[in-house]
Amino acid sequence: MAPSALQLSTSPHFSSSHSSFFDIGGFTITRQSKVFLPSRRASLICRSSSTEKTGTPTYTTKVPRNANIAKLNAGYLFPEINRRKSVHMSKYPDAQVISLGVGDTTEPIPEVISSAMAMRSHELSTFEGYSGYGDGQGDKKLRAAIASTYYGDLGLEESDVFISDGAKCDISRLQLLFGANVRIAVQDPTYPAYVDSGVIMGQTGTFQKDVEKYGNIEYMRCSPDNDFFPDLSTVPRTDIIFFCSPNNPTGSTASREQLTQLVKFAKENGSIIIYDSAYAMYISDDSPRSIFEIPGAKEVALEISSFSKYAGFTGVRLGWTAIPKELLFSDGLPVAKDFNRIVSTCFNGASNVAQAGGLACFSAEGLKAMGDVVGFYKENTDIIVDTFTSLGFDVYGGKNAPYVWVHFPGRSSWDVFAEILEKAHVVTTPGSGFGPGGEGFVRVSGFGHRGNVLEASKRLKQLFK
Amino acid sequence: MAPSALQLSTSPHFSSSHSSFFDIGGFTITRQSKVFLPSRRASLICRSSSTEKTGTPTYTTKVPRNANIAKLNAGYLFPEINRRKSVHMSKYPDAQVISLGVGDTTEPIPEVISSAMAMRSHELSTFEGYSGYGDGQGDKKLRAAIASTYYGDLGLEESDVFISDGAKCDISRLQLLFGANVRIAVQDPTYPAYVDSGVIMGQTGTFQKDVEKYGNIEYMRCSPDNDFFPDLSTVPRTDIIFFCSPNNPTGSTASREQLTQLVKFAKENGSIIIYDSAYAMYISDDSPRSIFEIPGAKEVALEISSFSKYAGFTGVRLGWTAIPKELLFSDGLPVAKDFNRIVSTCFNGASNVAQAGGLACFSAEGLKAMGDVVGFYKENTDIIVDTFTSLGFDVYGGKNAPYVWVHFPGRSSWDVFAEILEKAHVVTTPGSGFGPGGEGFVRVSGFGHRGNVLEASKRLKQLFK
Repeated sequence: MAPSALQLSTSPHFSSSHSSFFDIGGFTITRQSKVFLPSRRASLICRSSSTEKTGTPTYTTKVPRNANIAKLNAGYLFPEINRRKSVHMSKYPDAQVISLGVGDTTEPIPEVISSAMAMRSHELSTFEGYSGYGDGQGDKKLRAAIASTYYGDLGLEESDVFISDGAKCDISRLQLLFGANVRIAVQDPTYPAYVDSGVIMGQTGTFQKDVEKYGNIEYMRCSPDNDFFPDLSTVPRTDIIFFCSPNNPTGSTASREQLTQLVKFAKENGSIIIYDSAYAMYISDDSPRSIFEIPGAKEVALEISSFSKYAGFTGVRLGWTAIPKELLFSDGLPVAKDFNRIVSTCFNGASNVAQAGGLACFSAEGLKAMGDVVGFYKENTDIIVDTFTSLGFDVYGGKNAPYVWVHFPGRSSWDVFAEILEKAHVVTTPGSGFGPGGEGFVRVSGFGHRGNVLEASKRLKQLFK
Repeated sequence: MAPSALQLSTSPHFSSSHSSFFDIGGFTITRQSKVFLPSRRASLICRSSSTEKTGTPTYTTKVPRNANIAKLNAGYLFPEINRRKSVHMSKYPDAQVISLGVGDTTEPIPEVISSAMAMRSHELSTFEGYSGYGDGQGDKKLRAAIASTYYGDLGLEESDVFISDGAKCDISRLQLLFGANVRIAVQDPTYPAYVDSGVIMGQTGTFQKDVEKYGNIEYMRCSPDNDFFPDLSTVPRTDIIFFCSPNNPTGSTASREQLTQLVKFAKENGSIIIYDSAYAMYISDDSPRSIFEIPGAKEVALEISSFSKYAGFTGVRLGWTAIPKELLFSDGLPVAKDFNRIVSTCFNGASNVAQAGGLACFSAEGLKAMGDVVGFYKENTDIIVDTFTSLGFDVYGGKNAPYVWVHFPGRSSWDVFAEILEKAHVVTTPGSGFGPGGEGFVRVSGFGHRGNVLEASKRLKQLFK
């Protein structure tokens, strides 16, 4: 922790020399007159206000709390999981807690990618290599690499691609794009950010405890009974359809035929599909990796994706959204044009260092390295699938996704979560955290060090034998 | 540009080896059965849909364009400036165009800071140094450094600080926090992101061409006549008051007495001040560097700031927002608690590499280095102030800010902008782009290489002599 400003400012050495802002390096010499010399009480940068007692505050502003945020019925799922993990760890300080809960990557970033970020960092301290604000839509080279190397001959162009600081961040920017007056549909169970960001935007009614749903959101039930693909004949028309495949949390992947149905459904209804393909590279069979593999999709879909689960960029923060020129609002204006206005007003582009890493991901070596990362986590997932299968559970997902969806019929997800944490010191994610359709299931993530996954497997076999 | 996927997939070398996703590094050997072998027509990652002709699209969805975005009367200011610059450059391909327009940093990032980013990048490729998702609120060490080293003894705690990917991005997240039903006040002229993000959130009426204002926003006129500080006796109560000091664009800085008035005004009205201190380190006199230097401010204000103009992080993307525990909604709930929900739902933290750079900024060497950067740009600003002063113009700002605000009485800002660009090949920013109060002024930025600033000065003296 940095020394307190008071310490600094009361030290004659510091307040008169190199770490005070009031003589800015050599600058004092040339511009003495403009230099403010701090008083003894001055802090390093800011000056102290009269020493206020900060007891229980009594003053409240007249600004009302945002009623939409008040609708949120619980904390965002994953911080809540981490909170419970911490509580458990303080209860069992000696326990080796293994987290297969939050889908957080654990393996190092391949050197070919991290070196590119290091090199870009160094370049930024040179006159030749320095750059300031980048294109708000993202580095042209990176957008071109995604259009050509990721989307291949699907006909997307560099100008259709928007670089983001992660899929979750773009989900909220897309909510800002479409606004409060659209109605959304989500898979049930679903990644919570779609629903929660819609609640925050004011698209929904209040949370209805009896059905565990928010008003004015269409929950498209996905269960083993329907092969985790909604029965579209029963789904009413909505403006927006969030659809994630490979799915988080169920790990299921929609087939070409199913996605063809989905595109047809959207086209008949004039809906826009927000297709989340953040796990597409985990697909091992011939399921589509992009919604744009489906003919006609460009007129009804945009696609969000992320480097997080391919290159270990969960902390580096990089993703993209592809919006084809063919995607138009009812008035014929292109959706991409308004999204460009959103990113230039509400965002300023992803970090240039992260984007340099992203570009390296699409080099031949980077592609190979990402493949290795994906392959490693897929092997973890196999171990988890085999573990629960051998214990006689009904196990779903896993094949084309880093998530395994385990059925505990008739049991509460949170109870199962608590039992596994309490008895095996393994963190999972309760299915009901993803929506009412997840009740009775637990999501087990394939992200983890191999040793931890094997140890978790051993403990689970012990617990459920 | 990366080779097209089609080229790759039709190349026996590539499709059978190290740059295909379908054999993911060594993984094919162990899990052959799960490996999908691409057909000749398959692209590297995605498979081609039937070759669709993408002529003029005829299909439109039934999704209405967001009416709030339709209200925006022009493109975001700075992309528009860059667009005009490009047009000029294609008109005069041989001209040495100098940009003193968009406030974009030009000097290299100090090595002590870039090295920290490079080191963090390398660490991420090691088992010991790798980390995945960070704390959505930001790295604890960085938050602690900001609380102690930046805010000194003002009584802010690490838990009051939220690390962002830049002040502009947090402005939009703050708009999501407060929602569509608040009324905002802004300085006029003002940084456009406050107004435009409010329009997008649906807080405003339509743009009224006659007055050049949006309905339901309170524009607080700041001009030479009132020392660029609004006459608060004429300002009606609003929920939110955006206040930027040192000000962008006028370069004026509010005094301790003026900010004491502002805090008193907010307290009487129960308003919340969103105080933008992104240029605080440019202050050379004893003007407050933080709103929290004013007694009682913690109950009515939050503060946004940025590393962009101190460490050259315009492209690296890092900033922070400080929300004291004392700042409460009308129902007594803390504002910081809801903002935490916003960042955990709509954001996932700034890049870990950028945050490592931010931490280095607050080392003794980092503080000294930032001081040098600030000092350099302040010297540029002096040159610009002297230039226009010598030409007999009324010149404002500059002293405590990197912006010089030059008065061209009776002339249109855009005309002056066009004349300076056309005749001197120097890009400035038209004052009217910052609001009706900016008409007749031009903002000249102190960000630039010294040689360019001197050359621009020479050309301007030629033009206006």
